[in-house]
Amino acid sequence: MSLETLSTNKSFGGTQGAYRHDSRETGTPMTFSVYLPPQAAAGAKLPVVWYLSGLTCTHANVTEKGEYRRTCAELGLIFVAPDTSPRGEGVPDDPAGAYDFGLGAGFYVDATEPPFATHYRMYSYITRELPELIASHFPADMSRQAITGHSMGGHGALTIALKHPETYRSVSAFAPIVAPSQVPWGEKALSGYLGADRATWRAHDATSLVEDGKRADEILIDQGESDGFLAEQLQTHLFAAACEKVGIPLTLRMQPGYDHSYYFISTFLEDHLRWHAARLS
Amino acid sequence: MSLETLSTNKSFGGTQGAYRHDSRETGTPMTFSVYLPPQAAAGAKLPVVWYLSGLTCTHANVTEKGEYRRTCAELGLIFVAPDTSPRGEGVPDDPAGAYDFGLGAGFYVDATEPPFATHYRMYSYITRELPELIASHFPADMSRQAITGHSMGGHGALTIALKHPETYRSVSAFAPIVAPSQVPWGEKALSGYLGADRATWRAHDATSLVEDGKRADEILIDQGESDGFLAEQLQTHLFAAACEKVGIPLTLRMQPGYDHSYYFISTFLEDHLRWHAARLS
Repeated sequence: MSLETLSTNKSFGGTQGAYRHDSRETGTPMTFSVYLPPQAAAGAKLPVVWYLSGLTCTHANVTEKGEYRRTCAELGLIFVAPDTSPRGEGVPDDPAGAYDFGLGAGFYVDATEPPFATHYRMYSYITRELPELIASHFPADMSRQAITGHSMGGHGALTIALKHPETYRSVSAFAPIVAPSQVPWGEKALSGYLGADRATWRAHDATSLVEDGKRADEILIDQGESDGFLAEQLQTHLFAAACEKVGIPLTLRMQPGYDHSYYFISTFLEDHLRWHAARLS
Repeated sequence: MSLETLSTNKSFGGTQGAYRHDSRETGTPMTFSVYLPPQAAAGAKLPVVWYLSGLTCTHANVTEKGEYRRTCAELGLIFVAPDTSPRGEGVPDDPAGAYDFGLGAGFYVDATEPPFATHYRMYSYITRELPELIASHFPADMSRQAITGHSMGGHGALTIALKHPETYRSVSAFAPIVAPSQVPWGEKALSGYLGADRATWRAHDATSLVEDGKRADEILIDQGESDGFLAEQLQTHLFAAACEKVGIPLTLRMQPGYDHSYYFISTFLEDHLRWHAARLS
């Protein structure tokens, strides 16, 4: 598994890098970013925080706007930010070019529907291929992984953590899509990637996963009260109700005045990193 | 002086805004950003930190990548980020479209040469028009202003502060152009905007200004040692020598491994904000 270094920049005493590799899962070149905190220079293996991004994003959005490096440098956390879909020649997109399906909108599933099944394998990419690559190229302690994400990436973080509690010691999310089967973004994506049989969607719906018996030790979610997507697409209350019903400790912080942007995420990402670090140490 | 609000986002308890107005100086619409910390809600007038950006930038670069809001929220600082040139229909650009002259490269001077003299009035815009606008629309204590900037904006901050010590209580810079009369970027810009008579350049050259008797109480500069522009365009040592000769206390921190990017700026901007806050209180 070879890795091409696109850029490295010293920042907060560590190294912010961007990298590209040919993915066996997506069949395309894939780009991602890794922040190595200054502690990496000492040779120790360090815990890893995965950050899954939202619709329309690449690795670059959180890398530029997330404001995570100061805290990662303090706490000794490796921060990995993958892309949100395969890209490039031959990768099918939304037929109308919409922002919420296809390119930039992989929804962290392995598609089964043509023409998407060939390249849209983000679930296997995030849960298997990229961790192997990280483990082999960076000083990462893969026994100490945490996962978080924003919006579509919050959906990815919650569903992946619920299905792999042995891999991810902690999980949090920013303004996540929590019940894709019940909202327009999710219905479009899951039907497009997985087909019309809603039974297959349950494995990629955090609320359904909890209803079907998946568990997490605890979950942290921040949600802006002025988020324009809250009422229609996010509906955080559906997941909160499912967690409450089965006794999953969910810390849901409704943040007055905050919207869906990186101005919201960057405000609270430090809190999440400290929360994860406490559970990774 | 009317002001159009382009966007506001809650962040770190305060408000990050972007605004546009019709500038009398440039004869164009001008865009800038202002961060109001949470203390603004209490009605007090707050000190102002001006951040002047570098070549190719707009207000957006530091607004998205500067990572200043957390510290401004803690310290109660208003942070203002102007654009770097006039823009729009009828504004002349570099004849070859180069990045280092014309659009995005106003160099914080009032041009005297045609065809630039009409619109390129960034010096008067930054030192007179925009402060009036800020004073009339935001809870700004204009008796407590500090100024900083990056690269071309570091040049702007140093030259403006040296000429207006009564206005700016403190000045710092990131990787500034310190002697434009002696480096390619500056020679191109100053000849293009001010003409061939190098005597007129001295009022816009920080090193010349010190040689000609301008003073500052103290100055803070951070400069990356791995900055690819250091040897040819920045030549920080020229300014350090001029300051040393006349006894201006310059804290010049050469930062090993750091380059010219926002990964460098964001690492040290907190230090600068604390340094300014101490001098503004």
